[in-house]
Amino acid sequence: MAEERVATPGPLLATINSPVDIRRLKSEQLVDLSFELRDYIIDIVAIHGGHFGASLGVVELTVALHHVFNTPDDLLVWDVGHQAYGHKILTGRRDNFHTNRKYGGLSGFPKRSESPYDTFGVGHSSTSISAALGMAVGRDHNKEEKQVVAIIGDGSMSAGLAFEAMNNAGAMNSNILVILNDNRMSIDPNVGALNEYLADITSSGTFNKIRDEVYDLLGHFKAAGDKMRKVASRLEAAMTTALTPGSLFRALGFKYYGPVDGHNVRNLAKTLQDMKRIPGPKLLHVVTVKGKGFAPAEKDQVKWHASGSPFDKLSGASLAVKSTKPSLPKYQDIFADTLIELAEADKKIVGITAAMPSGTGLLKMMKQMPERTYDVGIAEQHGVTFAAGLATQGIKPFVAIYSTFMQRGYDQLVHDVCIQKLPVVFCMDRAGLVGADGPTHHGLYDISFLRCIPNIVVSAPMNEIELRDMMYTASHYSDGAFSIRYPRGSTENFLPAEQKPRLLEIGKGECLREGDHIAVLSFGTIGNQVVKAVDAMLAEGIAIGHYNMRFVKPLDTDLIDLIATKYGTVITIEDGTKIGGFGSAVAEYISENHPGVRVKIMGVPDRIVEHGTQDELYREVGIDSQAVVEAVRSVLELTAPKV
Amino acid sequence: MAEERVATPGPLLATINSPVDIRRLKSEQLVDLSFELRDYIIDIVAIHGGHFGASLGVVELTVALHHVFNTPDDLLVWDVGHQAYGHKILTGRRDNFHTNRKYGGLSGFPKRSESPYDTFGVGHSSTSISAALGMAVGRDHNKEEKQVVAIIGDGSMSAGLAFEAMNNAGAMNSNILVILNDNRMSIDPNVGALNEYLADITSSGTFNKIRDEVYDLLGHFKAAGDKMRKVASRLEAAMTTALTPGSLFRALGFKYYGPVDGHNVRNLAKTLQDMKRIPGPKLLHVVTVKGKGFAPAEKDQVKWHASGSPFDKLSGASLAVKSTKPSLPKYQDIFADTLIELAEADKKIVGITAAMPSGTGLLKMMKQMPERTYDVGIAEQHGVTFAAGLATQGIKPFVAIYSTFMQRGYDQLVHDVCIQKLPVVFCMDRAGLVGADGPTHHGLYDISFLRCIPNIVVSAPMNEIELRDMMYTASHYSDGAFSIRYPRGSTENFLPAEQKPRLLEIGKGECLREGDHIAVLSFGTIGNQVVKAVDAMLAEGIAIGHYNMRFVKPLDTDLIDLIATKYGTVITIEDGTKIGGFGSAVAEYISENHPGVRVKIMGVPDRIVEHGTQDELYREVGIDSQAVVEAVRSVLELTAPKV
Repeated sequence: MAEERVATPGPLLATINSPVDIRRLKSEQLVDLSFELRDYIIDIVAIHGGHFGASLGVVELTVALHHVFNTPDDLLVWDVGHQAYGHKILTGRRDNFHTNRKYGGLSGFPKRSESPYDTFGVGHSSTSISAALGMAVGRDHNKEEKQVVAIIGDGSMSAGLAFEAMNNAGAMNSNILVILNDNRMSIDPNVGALNEYLADITSSGTFNKIRDEVYDLLGHFKAAGDKMRKVASRLEAAMTTALTPGSLFRALGFKYYGPVDGHNVRNLAKTLQDMKRIPGPKLLHVVTVKGKGFAPAEKDQVKWHASGSPFDKLSGASLAVKSTKPSLPKYQDIFADTLIELAEADKKIVGITAAMPSGTGLLKMMKQMPERTYDVGIAEQHGVTFAAGLATQGIKPFVAIYSTFMQRGYDQLVHDVCIQKLPVVFCMDRAGLVGADGPTHHGLYDISFLRCIPNIVVSAPMNEIELRDMMYTASHYSDGAFSIRYPRGSTENFLPAEQKPRLLEIGKGECLREGDHIAVLSFGTIGNQVVKAVDAMLAEGIAIGHYNMRFVKPLDTDLIDLIATKYGTVITIEDGTKIGGFGSAVAEYISENHPGVRVKIMGVPDRIVEHGTQDELYREVGIDSQAVVEAVRSVLELTAPKV
Repeated sequence: MAEERVATPGPLLATINSPVDIRRLKSEQLVDLSFELRDYIIDIVAIHGGHFGASLGVVELTVALHHVFNTPDDLLVWDVGHQAYGHKILTGRRDNFHTNRKYGGLSGFPKRSESPYDTFGVGHSSTSISAALGMAVGRDHNKEEKQVVAIIGDGSMSAGLAFEAMNNAGAMNSNILVILNDNRMSIDPNVGALNEYLADITSSGTFNKIRDEVYDLLGHFKAAGDKMRKVASRLEAAMTTALTPGSLFRALGFKYYGPVDGHNVRNLAKTLQDMKRIPGPKLLHVVTVKGKGFAPAEKDQVKWHASGSPFDKLSGASLAVKSTKPSLPKYQDIFADTLIELAEADKKIVGITAAMPSGTGLLKMMKQMPERTYDVGIAEQHGVTFAAGLATQGIKPFVAIYSTFMQRGYDQLVHDVCIQKLPVVFCMDRAGLVGADGPTHHGLYDISFLRCIPNIVVSAPMNEIELRDMMYTASHYSDGAFSIRYPRGSTENFLPAEQKPRLLEIGKGECLREGDHIAVLSFGTIGNQVVKAVDAMLAEGIAIGHYNMRFVKPLDTDLIDLIATKYGTVITIEDGTKIGGFGSAVAEYISENHPGVRVKIMGVPDRIVEHGTQDELYREVGIDSQAVVEAVRSVLELTAPKV
């Protein structure tokens, strides 16, 4: 039913086939276009789902930018990219936009291969200023004239990468405009001192009041004698520097302008026009409301960061077809409940997230145990080293982090946690193919980049029961780091009510089924695809072995010795890159100790995998049950005695 | 000769066996102790070499800290750790200090396993505030009273990690003291807006002058009527907030104190005493001179960051025994010369370093082509994304970066460079075991963490001729990232004068010598150890094959097919972890395609390897020529026909 609804652009939006058409518009028409663009975004997300709040917040900014700047020659760099729906719709992708985040369709983020208007691919936050500075410096090298604009949210601004970029841009004289889209939110509310600082600037008072009073006084002085006038003018200059908002950014070498209302498109266009004439690094502080224009989203910005299912465009009520099956608990729910359970029993346990309390599920603990849960903001580096610091004091930190964001804290994991053998637990969510978020968010590399580091246990549960067992086991482990990877989404729903988590033997796998000739060794939840394949083949009279290895580090070499003695071929499977991961660990061991046994590695191939549902992607890359069946068949054919 | 010199502590220093002895001293004795400590550091480094400048700069600070704080119960966290020599000498390691950075001796950095006074192991910069905040929060959890102090240089402060930590600490109310050791230097001079900002604060004027004038004016007002007085008092508060230095830090939620003279130990002790009574997050800005008290070091701070060899303690003249052999060029020299040569031919080439112009050798290009060389400061994340931005504009960035610091830019490499297939060249210096800097600086993981990522070429030259060839080849490659790893230190000195670099076929290795039964496949300069081993065995009549693979990605599978057909055993060797790296790539391929061929992986074992000379460490971990000989022998014994 929901599928039949179609989003129709308003009459003005329907004429906008590229930004050239926006640049032709008169100032007052920008208001109409903004209205229609907002409406279209709401319509289309109401039907198809998608990220939402951030794009609604920058509707006017998007229109104004494409009106004022000569895109794509002038370069817009959108941070994170959640905010770029309007940009995509206005840059020739309106009629395709219903394919957003669908398999084979548009990416949910800006993407260089998709459009020349997408100058820099994103997904992770806080890259825009660095990238824009690179572009600006490149432009200067090439002796070109174009403008470079980074559009970054206040949440993204709190990441170290953004600070490093500001610190560099401020010291170079390259012409660059940073637009600070200040909506007081990331996916979750922002945290940190910078956030409070921005609130100070934009809130009713302090700054402006003092400034006004001072200017009043200066008036008196100017009327006075000569010496007084000199001092007053000196003082005025100091005031301008020190008492207007933005001194933080000025300290970093930027000219600061604003704050301005991000929903007044005509004024925005005028301001941006002014900015074009100001050389060097400059920052325009724009205040917006996340979810602007859609009442439910303005009210509950966390919930409406994105919508996964169709909804009523007025009330926000879900229009998803109600399933008759009860919905399965997610790994994130199991993680949250288990951590709370462990933390209740062990007062030393705390939870840490980097700006992902709702995504990781840690929000639940944050509500129940606010004094034992830390959201460090978009600051994975700090989050990991902070955890290491806590661990030195006998605290047991559980860091809830997406696999793909673990890459941001990699040096901290190596240098601050593992080299020092500190007991920090990493609960790595979104491991493997994540679905609609696509290449920037797939968690494909963690097995490889973790298992090469000393002093870390690398584990993956096959289901939610094992997730609980591993978290429990990790909470009792004190000999270094402990990582547990699990995917986005629904569990197998195997968990019996009230089952307590059990201590697992670290580095030990289990035999799920014995077989002939071929053993499949699985790591993590992808093992459930193997179960299906094994069952299907058994129905045909073919018995293959299946081993759930649980740990890639330490690897269960005793079990592999047994397997290698019994089977001529070992197939490994993981929801991660084929290179350097679980299969590689098995190959390393077998090729040295059991030459003669063939190892076939199944996993994600060494190329960028685009977006789609998880099932679509498992099929595409060949790690679903059907792929296992085919792999087994091809091995059997290969090894069958020739007639 | 130099070895016979012995450093003798002064009479007061000789009585200091632990900080308890410092806490007993009277204020005026702190001056004497500082004098003797500085002298002892100069003496000992003049004899044994070591990091130097940073520790001389914080002599008074170190004495004052241990005098005022109740270490080790109170926690001192030294950033980077170059500055901690005085700290080590005062905390029970005086008589061992001559073993500093020597095999089996003290570490050049603070290290938890070495002393309870070393609260957090370091080596990489900018971790101290995060770690200290973790400790402070842990203390609060544990309901303890101790003080936590992070001591961080102004260079380290420019890294994103430090900013993230400040942003978090400023927003939490945990009691923590950050001491900003402002000496205007990292190893090289600092760059960036923050640096300029600090210079503004501490330089003669602006701030203080304006402040004085304003207070003058306020005096007039206070004498005036009631309304005026109110406004004036308001204004005064605003002044205190806005016109005193440190508004940047206050914007981040810290109370700011200073700047104070870091070489007045009595005043420092008094100030630190005051700091203990101030709750919450606070920053004390201490101005020091790197190399203080040793004239040559004060004059040339870059050169005297560290000294590798003995010198005269007055003049600084080197006392190293002059070798009769001419010194070999280093890989860093070859890198620098080649990059300049390539950049002269191709105007699109630029060089980037993150605060390591002298270490990487890029300094030479920086001097010759200042407008095409970028030092981004301690900001590896930004450096990589900045390079990606440049690449989008057709510029060809060569990023000169230590292998171990590549870990800091890992997400940026994956997300901004490789996913977008942007042509950025990474010249990864200090790959493999680096020697005296030890575990935090060994570059052991890069092969593993790079080869699992799509769209990157992963290569390693066997000698400086190939380094040049690979750089040249990389400059002509546009299909994604290109990484080249090479070690710290001397080349093989194979390079014929005037030899032009040649284009290599990407993904192709070469046969250096055919042999029987066993083939050794090497990756990188460690192959020269194999050459020695092959020669030694040949002298005994045993011929083993040797293949220089050059690329681990793409892997030369054609060559491996040939090898696997010819030899029953393949030994791989790399100067990097055994896990997930080059050997692993070979094992993955052979175990699937040539079961029956045994693969033995030689490399650095999966544990933390301490410091020592490179040769000592190669021997210890078993990747020198002797180890290759032994490995070959054990394979031969294993496969010899039983009599």
